[in-house]
Amino acid sequence: MQKLTIGLFGFGVVGEGIFEVLNNTPSLCATIKKICILHPDKKRKAPGELFTSDREEILCDPEINVIVELIDDAEAALDITRAALSKGKAVVSANKKMIAEHLEELLVLQKKYGVPFLYEAAVCGSVPVIRNLEEYYDNDMLKGIRGIVNGSTNFMLSRMNAGGVSYADALCEAQQAGFAESDPTLDVSGRDALNKLVILLLHAYGTRTEPHKLLCRGISLLHPSDSVVAGERGWRIKLVATALKLKCGKVAAFVLPEFVRNPDPLFQVQNEFNGVLIESQLADQQFLFGKGAGRYPTSSAVLSDIAALRYDYRYEYRKLSSGLTPSLTQDLYLKIYVGFNSWNEVNKWDFETISEFHSTADRQYLVGTIHLEKLRNAEWFHDGSAPVILMPEGIIEKRAVLEHSLKKISLQLAGV
Amino acid sequence: MQKLTIGLFGFGVVGEGIFEVLNNTPSLCATIKKICILHPDKKRKAPGELFTSDREEILCDPEINVIVELIDDAEAALDITRAALSKGKAVVSANKKMIAEHLEELLVLQKKYGVPFLYEAAVCGSVPVIRNLEEYYDNDMLKGIRGIVNGSTNFMLSRMNAGGVSYADALCEAQQAGFAESDPTLDVSGRDALNKLVILLLHAYGTRTEPHKLLCRGISLLHPSDSVVAGERGWRIKLVATALKLKCGKVAAFVLPEFVRNPDPLFQVQNEFNGVLIESQLADQQFLFGKGAGRYPTSSAVLSDIAALRYDYRYEYRKLSSGLTPSLTQDLYLKIYVGFNSWNEVNKWDFETISEFHSTADRQYLVGTIHLEKLRNAEWFHDGSAPVILMPEGIIEKRAVLEHSLKKISLQLAGV
Repeated sequence: MQKLTIGLFGFGVVGEGIFEVLNNTPSLCATIKKICILHPDKKRKAPGELFTSDREEILCDPEINVIVELIDDAEAALDITRAALSKGKAVVSANKKMIAEHLEELLVLQKKYGVPFLYEAAVCGSVPVIRNLEEYYDNDMLKGIRGIVNGSTNFMLSRMNAGGVSYADALCEAQQAGFAESDPTLDVSGRDALNKLVILLLHAYGTRTEPHKLLCRGISLLHPSDSVVAGERGWRIKLVATALKLKCGKVAAFVLPEFVRNPDPLFQVQNEFNGVLIESQLADQQFLFGKGAGRYPTSSAVLSDIAALRYDYRYEYRKLSSGLTPSLTQDLYLKIYVGFNSWNEVNKWDFETISEFHSTADRQYLVGTIHLEKLRNAEWFHDGSAPVILMPEGIIEKRAVLEHSLKKISLQLAGV
Repeated sequence: MQKLTIGLFGFGVVGEGIFEVLNNTPSLCATIKKICILHPDKKRKAPGELFTSDREEILCDPEINVIVELIDDAEAALDITRAALSKGKAVVSANKKMIAEHLEELLVLQKKYGVPFLYEAAVCGSVPVIRNLEEYYDNDMLKGIRGIVNGSTNFMLSRMNAGGVSYADALCEAQQAGFAESDPTLDVSGRDALNKLVILLLHAYGTRTEPHKLLCRGISLLHPSDSVVAGERGWRIKLVATALKLKCGKVAAFVLPEFVRNPDPLFQVQNEFNGVLIESQLADQQFLFGKGAGRYPTSSAVLSDIAALRYDYRYEYRKLSSGLTPSLTQDLYLKIYVGFNSWNEVNKWDFETISEFHSTADRQYLVGTIHLEKLRNAEWFHDGSAPVILMPEGIIEKRAVLEHSLKKISLQLAGV
């Protein structure tokens, strides 16, 4: 077994947690030699001689063979990762933004320098989803993945679903409870979930993409009346990252708020928890559930990667090199709920069919089926304020199905 | 990557499934060279020249480097495994009975001959619990595992919990649906779950034991009125295998029917599904859920092991060799429900305290706290017919807690 000498970048709550556990677990054979921080004058819970603000002191130390990178800044993290891999040092990272946005380069670097780059903590914290996809579904025909992969927004939605709590209050509560960043934009816009989806696509199907190429909507436009509709039907609104292999062999992937029903396992994923539902031809449904964020869950995932490095574990990206990698498609239909106050917030002619329309004094909503590409390009969607929520079983692969089942209802509603 | 030439023992539904997938997945680089069966005259869904009824034809073939053993008979399976390992052939098995009952010998054989022996399919079918415990919780302080690990009994309990279905009818339904063996004794007695618990203990804590050393009760004594009690309180009866690290550092382990409440993740595990809840100091709760048995889930797990052999994966049993392996203890208290028709079916003086007693014209039940060792040795328990069900939060580590909280109630009830 390899002895690991670690250079740590960042010493926030996760860094502290890891320092603590490594000190108390000599069996891990891993020691932190140096910690690089931005503010050397801040008081720290570790001996002063461990700290430096000069990153070269770590990167140029030949004794250090593992870099654990836990800093917020995705660009600085990329620089560090580049430098470390090129010097033959293994890297453990939790930075989903860096990984999702620089997937290609990071794959090239790993291949070129032949050193492990592990990032289990980047997706769903303590839920070992990456390693399971990498190791376990190798032989299995993966139908799809649906995941609640962002703990902050799930905490907020749990509060909003329970009723009475507005988006603004839920955000405030999440921040007070330590589940949301002071700048929550990445979380509430869905972009954090999207970054994780990009990483999941790579390990699930070997499919490489960039975040901006996928349909993404967060939770910031949700209206209290949407929770009321969910409540009336016994549903819950969840922010779900979906990757689904269609019958044509291509993969659809997007992040959208979704109405989730019991007994969908995602229905039970509440508060700051994460859950990933994996459907495969052989194993049927599998569900992984656990804490997605926070000091100890993230530390736990990082430590697992460190432990795996002792026996030189690395992702082999077998699906990527299999030659059977499915490509992405935007050619499918979504059955969605749209809430609005007036018809100028949505263009009804974008829909193939409208199957429900409800109007009260306060608020209106429709349920309709729309082509994914049309939704993505619709001005009312990308610049507007109408909440869009995927309906249960809302993914429809073929137009023929629509025409058959929904045309009649649509015609009746054409007058709305 | 290694090329795998497989000798298969057994060609039931799982064997057929594996043959089918290997044929359709050339990227696995694994071919079945020979299949050993008991009844050579039976019609098979594979070319006749593949079959033999002479096991030496497989075991003595130097080209065959992997044995996949899928036969029912635990003794024959052990003979085959012994012979294969001693000839340097890797073995993949799904036989939990063989593994649990011959753990020590199998560990010695693996060490002696240095070949991989994988058995993910032996516990929870498609749920990758062994490999997760082996790989992922290495650095993590594991508090405990609670699992629904037997699909047949969970199917039956789901029918019985829903009300109106008796034990006998539920068993009949399970057999018709193909979820129970024609001889269901291993399942309904809890012994199948117990075998799996023995394997889980090894990979969770490195703790070795034998099935007969642990407290075990199945579902065959459950009475329709027990489901009524569960229903009244909004609970469900589940057969749960528990391994729990106590504050003293030792591990308690047993299989018992248990009243499970929402939002315990095990509450949602219905029908033939399995679920394992892992609690650890860092990662908090993690939950793995999926199909535990049947053709494809079991095939999926076996295929994962085959896929892992390509890169020479083996269990490293790191917790076993860590020197930190906790020992087992029977020194704890259980809060249990006992149903009965008359007081001669249970000895109330065995209980430390009795906190509830209910009596109707048809049936009586008590809820009381009892030392695990006393329960295990009680004649009314091991030879009697009174159903025993663990209460929610029914594990009590210290007698002091009991005395403080329950003595008063107990005194009032002493006259019952």
